[in-house]
Amino acid sequence: MNNFNDWLKSPVANIDSAAQEQAFQRQQQLTKPAGSLGRLEQLAIQLAAMQAMPLPQIDKVQITVFAADHGVMAENVSAFPQSVTTAMIHNFASGGAAISVLANSLNASLSVINVGSVDELETIDGVEDQRIASGTNNFCLEPAMSSEQLQQALSVGADHVTGCLTQGLDLFIGGDMGIGNTTSATAIACALLNLPAETLTGPGTGLNTDGVKHKAAVIEKALLKHQPALNDPLSVLQHVGGFEIAALTGAYLACAKQGLPVLVDGFISSVAALAAEHLSPGSRDWFIFSHASAEPGHQHIMAALDAEPLLDLGMRLGEASGAAVAVPLLKLSCALHANMATFEQAAVAGAL
Amino acid sequence: MNNFNDWLKSPVANIDSAAQEQAFQRQQQLTKPAGSLGRLEQLAIQLAAMQAMPLPQIDKVQITVFAADHGVMAENVSAFPQSVTTAMIHNFASGGAAISVLANSLNASLSVINVGSVDELETIDGVEDQRIASGTNNFCLEPAMSSEQLQQALSVGADHVTGCLTQGLDLFIGGDMGIGNTTSATAIACALLNLPAETLTGPGTGLNTDGVKHKAAVIEKALLKHQPALNDPLSVLQHVGGFEIAALTGAYLACAKQGLPVLVDGFISSVAALAAEHLSPGSRDWFIFSHASAEPGHQHIMAALDAEPLLDLGMRLGEASGAAVAVPLLKLSCALHANMATFEQAAVAGAL
Repeated sequence: MNNFNDWLKSPVANIDSAAQEQAFQRQQQLTKPAGSLGRLEQLAIQLAAMQAMPLPQIDKVQITVFAADHGVMAENVSAFPQSVTTAMIHNFASGGAAISVLANSLNASLSVINVGSVDELETIDGVEDQRIASGTNNFCLEPAMSSEQLQQALSVGADHVTGCLTQGLDLFIGGDMGIGNTTSATAIACALLNLPAETLTGPGTGLNTDGVKHKAAVIEKALLKHQPALNDPLSVLQHVGGFEIAALTGAYLACAKQGLPVLVDGFISSVAALAAEHLSPGSRDWFIFSHASAEPGHQHIMAALDAEPLLDLGMRLGEASGAAVAVPLLKLSCALHANMATFEQAAVAGAL
Repeated sequence: MNNFNDWLKSPVANIDSAAQEQAFQRQQQLTKPAGSLGRLEQLAIQLAAMQAMPLPQIDKVQITVFAADHGVMAENVSAFPQSVTTAMIHNFASGGAAISVLANSLNASLSVINVGSVDELETIDGVEDQRIASGTNNFCLEPAMSSEQLQQALSVGADHVTGCLTQGLDLFIGGDMGIGNTTSATAIACALLNLPAETLTGPGTGLNTDGVKHKAAVIEKALLKHQPALNDPLSVLQHVGGFEIAALTGAYLACAKQGLPVLVDGFISSVAALAAEHLSPGSRDWFIFSHASAEPGHQHIMAALDAEPLLDLGMRLGEASGAAVAVPLLKLSCALHANMATFEQAAVAGAL
């Protein structure tokens, strides 16, 4: 990225209201009672507006998982050990992770980008090495990263999207892997929404009640420590963020600025979407929210973004898995929109 | 069907609890926090129990739409004219209806069976002619059908499923088409659940508030007229049912008795599922409920069947469209279940 600050200040793309109106009109003519396909109608219209095409399509889907480690793991905030981040990077690459199976089933392209595992990894087929540091710092003691590292993480995400766009793309999905990252994401959301830690903190991968209490106390301590620096979204990401969350934010910003629809995954991804909206207001126009995470704080993020997720399946895995599961809904909404007969074509009488 | 009464009294198949347990154990070993795939885990386990296979599959999907007309249309209970039933039968066959597009997108087999359009139709490619009568009678004046006609309708559905099963099948989806059929379905549900018409009556394809009030009054009048005959589910279907609803009921019963999983569509289909459960208790074990219909009475049917539908997209079209949209969730749950690596395979450490 040549000039990061200019890029960050550049406006988001506008959706195409003419294509939106054409898609709306077409929906009224299809052989069904008006509105009877519910959100599938709205999705087709929304995608038409985003893709600037009266007949939108979801054929080329890019799924990118950003992985990194978190210094705050020193505070004992997760049910899983930190070594799992690295093991899962291998699992993504070898096809055994949930998102690997889903991407394969959906015929979507899957990229894995290591932006900061604790361990330096050998070269792995299918994993891009963009490691910024050996995990973030423990943000209970110091800022999670330097401003240069933050810029680097945002740029990795943004440059990745820009690169994907040169090959043509209908939809971008970002995902996260990083043991401890609900702690960072919760801290970011608390700072951006001015909410106490206990409101947003949840079990993540599976803490018990005491574990959740401890995690909330850790987050509250960090928020207090960095309080003077939490007055703008960039500084929030620097002080309590994670490399993969910042990379996701950069990717989402690049989508919004270049006009590519994003299907947002669950808790971590929604916090990245919230950060993107705070950094570049209007970004949210480019986001479709895929599923309601079982992580209890997610509903607050959804409310702040005025979002109603498509699915509510009790999922809480991350890795972009919830977004991947919602892809068929988008595909089917486009198929219905494009291929159903109109009342005129089918000689069906409309409503009285 | 050789002996209808024997068949009706025959028990439903048992699910396979050994396969269910094996699938449950496998889910605990896959590389994800336990339970983090939410309902997708439960679906895989449920399908394993139904298909008696630790690794279930949803490859061969049969979608069958039963179409018929309703004498109660004489009471002015729909926003659409009765001619639409016939026009939509043509639309299904020519590929322009929502379910035609969905079946094509899902690579599912689509059958359309005319069990009682008002008009006698010419031979249509892709439509099976099993027309029982020129629509049902107006059940405000007389029973909707004779007991012989009811038996015929149930048998059409059941025989169809039995025929499909000879070719191998992983999942059955039934759908409905029949202008006026929410009036019949609502009357059936009121009779089976002993609820007043105003509790269950909704706008169907798009009645306004006055239209819904009138429709509820029509249903209440019919329930009052036939009250002495509404003491068993067979008699309920005969007096206030429809040919397509009875055929759906017969199809569901055949699935339950022969052990084939059913993905149930919205309001009409759920009423048929309710009737099947009343006719052969335990049938419900074979039903997966696909979506929450926007028709307000649907939630009462779901509560009565202790069902939590997978999707809530505000759909209210019928034709099996909501069930079709949920098929990818079943496919993806099976793919995740079969193809994800175990902790051991991936050398990922489990929860502390």
